Amino acid sequence: MTTFAIVLFPDVEELDWVGPWEVLTSWAKHFPDDDVHVFTVADTTDVITCAKGARVLADHPWDTAPSFDVLVYPGGQGTRRQLGDEVIRGRIRKLTEAGALMTSVCTGSLVYGDAGILDGRPATTHWAALDELRAVSEYIDVRTGVRWVDDGHVITAAGVSAGIDMALHLICRLHSEERAHQVKLAIQYDPAPPV
Amino acid sequence: MTTFAIVLFPDVEELDWVGPWEVLTSWAKHFPDDDVHVFTVADTTDVITCAKGARVLADHPWDTAPSFDVLVYPGGQGTRRQLGDEVIRGRIRKLTEAGALMTSVCTGSLVYGDAGILDGRPATTHWAALDELRAVSEYIDVRTGVRWVDDGHVITAAGVSAGIDMALHLICRLHSEERAHQVKLAIQYDPAPPV
Repeated sequence: MTTFAIVLFPDVEELDWVGPWEVLTSWAKHFPDDDVHVFTVADTTDVITCAKGARVLADHPWDTAPSFDVLVYPGGQGTRRQLGDEVIRGRIRKLTEAGALMTSVCTGSLVYGDAGILDGRPATTHWAALDELRAVSEYIDVRTGVRWVDDGHVITAAGVSAGIDMALHLICRLHSEERAHQVKLAIQYDPAPPV
Repeated sequence: MTTFAIVLFPDVEELDWVGPWEVLTSWAKHFPDDDVHVFTVADTTDVITCAKGARVLADHPWDTAPSFDVLVYPGGQGTRRQLGDEVIRGRIRKLTEAGALMTSVCTGSLVYGDAGILDGRPATTHWAALDELRAVSEYIDVRTGVRWVDDGHVITAAGVSAGIDMALHLICRLHSEERAHQVKLAIQYDPAPPV
């Protein structure tokens, strides 16, 4: 069994979390024998307003959330208010020490960096937030021009839509390229941007 | 002013609606002078559970929703229960006659086809639902292997993630390629699927 927890918080960027959510829940739904589970987790089970105004409900509060193998930390303007928060720092460090695979999308990596878990590691973020990532810790090896960085225990993706690619990479890594290809077909992910 | 309404309903596919939502709300937010507005609309303002389990709230019920220029109809398993519903058929026809630009993602086009607005038009849907689209009306010119079909008053996109490409096309059409490129940058949409 592989369980994924996707973090929600006020001003989380919508596509940052729904991209991986769609990829991972499609894997779970179309391949039940793979025993994949996905839920969202937040400080509250009250309504959460995302960065662009969508209103959503998390599946579990942190206090009573089931255990999980992989954390997905999306970005969005709401990540800035989390920097310096000792509760969040402690949570991120504890999960990392416990062996969770820590993944992020966009400015979710700022929260990881602020907790110190990116020190000595290569990592990335949204192209417009690269300096912010450098600012949270001088010990992060900030990578530019990449879709995601897989450093073993930590995977950080670039901005917003990069979470879709990163989630497909997760399927490659945790299962197989064949399964990732099947999920890509399910969500008809043959991108053709008109510009 | 250009106003977009995105339809929500039980078992709407998450990325089907969040893809266009992210593109269009990013346009609205980063370019306020363009006077773009985006809201979600549904039968209810109670919690709606999407196809993969995400729980969301619509901005407006149909009865009291503001007027809009463009409708975005996402797909998902929930579209099947809407086929044959005379209230929905009447709504779709009335909006089309009133001159709204009717757009869909994935199996949203089944609902349009069921209302008869695709008769005599080229249209598409998720690759796995092409036969279902043919079945709703023999007068639809069903197109395969395309990311979206723009037939002037109606634009239908292929499955799930194709809504992102279609929404960028909408910006090209309603504003400019330059603006679509700027929004693409904002959501860092430089897709690089690993498989």
